[in-house]
Amino acid sequence: MKRFLSGITPSGDGTLHIGNYLGAVKQFIKLSVNHDCYLMVADLHALTTIQNKEQLQKNTETLILNELTLLVGELGLSLPNITFFRQSDVPLHAELQTILNNVTPLGLIKRAHAYKDKLAKETALDDINMGLFNYPVLMAADILIYKSDLVPVGRDQKQHIEIARDIAERFNKIYGSGKRKAASGKTVFTLPEPYIPEDVAVVLGTDGKRKMSKSLGNIISIFEDEEIIKKQVMGTFTDPTRIHADDPGHIEGNMVFTYLDFFGVKGKVEELKGFYRRGQVSDMEVKNYLFESLLKYFTKARESYKELNSNPALVQKILQEGAEKARSFAEKTLTEVREAIGLTNKYSFFSYN
Amino acid sequence: MKRFLSGITPSGDGTLHIGNYLGAVKQFIKLSVNHDCYLMVADLHALTTIQNKEQLQKNTETLILNELTLLVGELGLSLPNITFFRQSDVPLHAELQTILNNVTPLGLIKRAHAYKDKLAKETALDDINMGLFNYPVLMAADILIYKSDLVPVGRDQKQHIEIARDIAERFNKIYGSGKRKAASGKTVFTLPEPYIPEDVAVVLGTDGKRKMSKSLGNIISIFEDEEIIKKQVMGTFTDPTRIHADDPGHIEGNMVFTYLDFFGVKGKVEELKGFYRRGQVSDMEVKNYLFESLLKYFTKARESYKELNSNPALVQKILQEGAEKARSFAEKTLTEVREAIGLTNKYSFFSYN
Repeated sequence: MKRFLSGITPSGDGTLHIGNYLGAVKQFIKLSVNHDCYLMVADLHALTTIQNKEQLQKNTETLILNELTLLVGELGLSLPNITFFRQSDVPLHAELQTILNNVTPLGLIKRAHAYKDKLAKETALDDINMGLFNYPVLMAADILIYKSDLVPVGRDQKQHIEIARDIAERFNKIYGSGKRKAASGKTVFTLPEPYIPEDVAVVLGTDGKRKMSKSLGNIISIFEDEEIIKKQVMGTFTDPTRIHADDPGHIEGNMVFTYLDFFGVKGKVEELKGFYRRGQVSDMEVKNYLFESLLKYFTKARESYKELNSNPALVQKILQEGAEKARSFAEKTLTEVREAIGLTNKYSFFSYN
Repeated sequence: MKRFLSGITPSGDGTLHIGNYLGAVKQFIKLSVNHDCYLMVADLHALTTIQNKEQLQKNTETLILNELTLLVGELGLSLPNITFFRQSDVPLHAELQTILNNVTPLGLIKRAHAYKDKLAKETALDDINMGLFNYPVLMAADILIYKSDLVPVGRDQKQHIEIARDIAERFNKIYGSGKRKAASGKTVFTLPEPYIPEDVAVVLGTDGKRKMSKSLGNIISIFEDEEIIKKQVMGTFTDPTRIHADDPGHIEGNMVFTYLDFFGVKGKVEELKGFYRRGQVSDMEVKNYLFESLLKYFTKARESYKELNSNPALVQKILQEGAEKARSFAEKTLTEVREAIGLTNKYSFFSYN
């Protein structure tokens, strides 16, 4: 089985909405059928922006509960093929970052989008921290430590995978030549490929204009109370040219139908589209159907949420099992890396166990 | 007891000469009388320049043997108050670096001398690696992880301590405020002070012009065969204005007397200085005395060298004990750091043991 690594950073408040579900979690679930999946809660990456103890704790707890619940809701507690863990529970990511720094040209990192975007906004270099600047190398370490074959990303993150590939190639070239390589025919790192799912490239928010984002107030929640979700659905952008319930309406750009394509029953949705185009169904009726469809779609997840929320020991156990599996893989990679670069010698005793 | 951290990087071939002894190892020995000393072989720092497995292995082995031998020669195998270890045997240094990056302004690192010097020499940013650029943050982690009170440095490295202090202050300020600080009255990091020994600020080489350095061929070795050391002593710069053995000679700038001040018997050296000034002793005679003094001074160290070189298991044992002690200290610091920044939460299980 091919392996992939993906992470969600608890830089927001940690609650996941249907945009996060479609753009990330649903992809993980789909890929997990025939991939070995490493899913991390990227708390070390959150440190570039969240420098407040209580806030980071709360965000991370919320994200863990939200993401795990969505996975467990669809796949059950055994989470087949999935290793779910917190990044900081595997400190070897940081160790590999420190080592990879040495084969990473400064120029490569200066060309990274996140840094360039920040640089364009800030007036002083002192307003940019080294964590943000170094972010692509830590991300390369995250990916390469599990010898990931692919990394699911949005189009805007494709560059990170390119940087990780570049770093892996440089390491393999510098340390993979000579007798050792000829003997084993192997190099340490796998070159990762970006995986960009076609159908969910961009999930727009309820305003129909911008990417769904909590800070823009254009989300539909998954785990909130029903009244809140109903309110979000009722406020969703439909067809502004339609005044009366019997006016013919447009489906294109109508966010209610966009979401129904993912969450409704296909036959029923096609029927509603016909009615809507001919002015035979009101906005209220299709919104009600979307609301019902969402509640139905996430029934198990919403039950899992209650179950996991009242049982932190179970969440902890899943995280610990994930971390142990991830760490065991990471230790094997780092052992190879240490050997390849010459940190081992006749006085060595070091081992991770 | 106050604590200090110092390190020697195996970026050269690892052999130590009398310049290294006077400028570093002798200072460590002197400080160890009343300080808790953490002495590391900084192999992770060597990776910025040594990207060849066999070379790094050889340099590191040689440096370990040379440094340990000098320490054991004067202090015996028990090395009181000294924790001697390899940096890469304590991967928590890298973990702390990754965390400290987030409280380190990019501008601070751009002002670091090592980077600026390199930038002045290189035409392309791609010829500078991120390891070199990040070097001051790793060095800050090295120092802060042991809550070091002081760091013995040459004048040219003073800036590194200033950067480490700056990073520690920022961390303490960001994460030490609020209720927690008021309750405990404590912050995580100690602010380190540079310790610049007065008498050995610069030890010039045998050419009397430049700092002693293997690459300049102006060294006097410690562990080489006697003939080589004799040759190095005989080639040492004295007083070029003195032609005949009975010409009056100068002591100032005369490297033989500079070294004799450190390695000769005080009364005898003063007597020789008088004879030399009055033209009553030849260059050859004072050089012979320096040669004898050096062999006498390093007798025990040269014996220890043979002993340790033939017993790698003993060297390994000392390194392992050092690493275990260093790691235990580092784990306590990182546990505090993780707590302070909010990596711990209700789902946490992580511990280093």
